[in-house]
Amino acid sequence: MESQTREHLFEKAKDFVYEAGQRIKEKIHEPRTIETKSNPNDLVTEMDQSTEKFFAESIRNEFPEHRLFGEEGFGDDIQDLKGIVWIVDPIDGTMNFVHQKRNFAISVGIYEEGVGQIGIIYDVMAGALYTAVRGQGAFKNDEPLKLMNERSMEQSILALNTSWLIPENPHIEHKGVEELVKRIRSTRSYGSAALEFAYVAEGVLDGYLTMTLMPWDIAAGKIIVNEVGGLVTTADGQELDMLNKTTVLASHPDIHKEIIDQYVELKK
Amino acid sequence: MESQTREHLFEKAKDFVYEAGQRIKEKIHEPRTIETKSNPNDLVTEMDQSTEKFFAESIRNEFPEHRLFGEEGFGDDIQDLKGIVWIVDPIDGTMNFVHQKRNFAISVGIYEEGVGQIGIIYDVMAGALYTAVRGQGAFKNDEPLKLMNERSMEQSILALNTSWLIPENPHIEHKGVEELVKRIRSTRSYGSAALEFAYVAEGVLDGYLTMTLMPWDIAAGKIIVNEVGGLVTTADGQELDMLNKTTVLASHPDIHKEIIDQYVELKK
Repeated sequence: MESQTREHLFEKAKDFVYEAGQRIKEKIHEPRTIETKSNPNDLVTEMDQSTEKFFAESIRNEFPEHRLFGEEGFGDDIQDLKGIVWIVDPIDGTMNFVHQKRNFAISVGIYEEGVGQIGIIYDVMAGALYTAVRGQGAFKNDEPLKLMNERSMEQSILALNTSWLIPENPHIEHKGVEELVKRIRSTRSYGSAALEFAYVAEGVLDGYLTMTLMPWDIAAGKIIVNEVGGLVTTADGQELDMLNKTTVLASHPDIHKEIIDQYVELKK
Repeated sequence: MESQTREHLFEKAKDFVYEAGQRIKEKIHEPRTIETKSNPNDLVTEMDQSTEKFFAESIRNEFPEHRLFGEEGFGDDIQDLKGIVWIVDPIDGTMNFVHQKRNFAISVGIYEEGVGQIGIIYDVMAGALYTAVRGQGAFKNDEPLKLMNERSMEQSILALNTSWLIPENPHIEHKGVEELVKRIRSTRSYGSAALEFAYVAEGVLDGYLTMTLMPWDIAAGKIIVNEVGGLVTTADGQELDMLNKTTVLASHPDIHKEIIDQYVELKK
């Protein structure tokens, strides 16, 4: 992609994200919105769908040759990443959206022939826009992001949900996760994959280990974490499959291999 | 305490908290502050101490008959809660302070003859001030806080650190915690007790279960959670000991007893 094309695309994508965020904020603050719904889940379903529809229409208008890969059915039927594909999660962290009315994000990753070019994660209620353009570093609003020079396991804070310590979880051997928790400094859990990627890029977390993400949960975060020198793979160190559900480890490069080699044993 | 006295005390306490927060913000944004320290923990130790010292001096100036109960040694030698005692944590969430430069809080609880009168939790970097005056409800900045009318276990999000799922932890039988995690909607972990109390009062969390808090971690949070109708006890349902280390369950009243009766088995 030529740099001028990419710059134009980046500006437009940011415009779409800000406008989508504005629409969500207006809805979330309108008391009627909640009251008229029999179930708070109806609100998030409606907002998820209307936001994806907004992206679908905006992309078709401005970039008719691009394709959209999303969850809600307003995009294209994506079987490969040929050409330019926008991978969009209109509301990442839907449980937070419903329960907390904050700590959710709009996530937009733009891929060309499968290579991540632009990543945008917008923490709507905090007004924090995390962005990366391939080869140009990553930013939070206008501030460049940078990982710590060095990070040991003992210094590390990882995002890790309690689910992966439950013996019956079908994805990862919990004994290894127990040993990991005992080794590191501490764990956190925020309930939004996109924000957890953003926090890894920001150095607020040193890693994020999880088991069941979809491409739209990952697409922007992978680009942003990679741009600061962080590593993003499956939990057992393979390249991510950007078309299907996957495990993920995003982390500071100093601890990535050690987590995988010593603590991750996936169930088959 | 007469209401006029309490109102004056509340206004002064808020002034102290805002001024302390301002000092912390100035330090945290000063690049030299970090660079001249050989170890980031030195910064938090220095800020913890200087902030407690600021509270000690301010309280002695304005309210010479009051006592201060804190961690850093600038307060009084507290063996009981007679009279009026300020219980202060200058920086709650020190690991977040060092690692994230946000998600920490100033926590101030003011007790009279052991009864909580005023609670203030200030999320310094987010600019969110959570307050309660006994009998007058709780607020986030100027917005009144309110729990959900009803909450079931299956709808609940609890703050719960992965530590309590580790079999070797010396405080709680991990098998019960596993069953709890399987029953509820989800868990979160933010790394600041004061903020986790504030989030329970806000309904952003439905409960917070933890094992090793000191009185200054709890003092403000208990008052604020109680003011919205939430319950705060030890993890096995006893009244809190406000002079010593303790376990804590703070939660929506609909789920409090069920968590204790069915899922908490403390190790002796």
